[in-house]
Amino acid sequence: QNKFHRGRCFCADKGVDVVLLKNIEKFEIIPASPSCGKQEIIVTLKSAERKCMNPESKLTQNLIKRALGKMARQ
Amino acid sequence: QNKFHRGRCFCADKGVDVVLLKNIEKFEIIPASPSCGKQEIIVTLKSAERKCMNPESKLTQNLIKRALGKMARQ
Repeated sequence: QNKFHRGRCFCADKGVDVVLLKNIEKFEIIPASPSCGKQEIIVTLKSAERKCMNPESKLTQNLIKRALGKMARQ
Repeated sequence: QNKFHRGRCFCADKGVDVVLLKNIEKFEIIPASPSCGKQEIIVTLKSAERKCMNPESKLTQNLIKRALGKMARQ
């Protein structure tokens, strides 16, 4: 599975495109910074596992917009 | 400032609507769960301070979409 990169960035590879919204406990969106030159999206699953998601994937972006959308309809 | 709520939810109040994107080190989007019945958006600032943002505010949602948008244009 995708490995976490010790040192500068969390995600060593591009990450996955799809994770089921119902399995997600938390999204972390980390904009690029001096310590890691690329933006990262890390999801913590209800199983406590953490996964990197591909920030450039439309599927990933739609997933986050869906999560945001749910908030708007609260 | 907004207080963190010990126990079930992180955010004790609605949270702020606006934070400068350049000051943000990380976004956390936490969908509603059994332990906290409302969705929460917590930003960690470069100063290490953590702030709750109002998930229902259009400004907050646009901020996250802008952060996501930056990822798409990488």
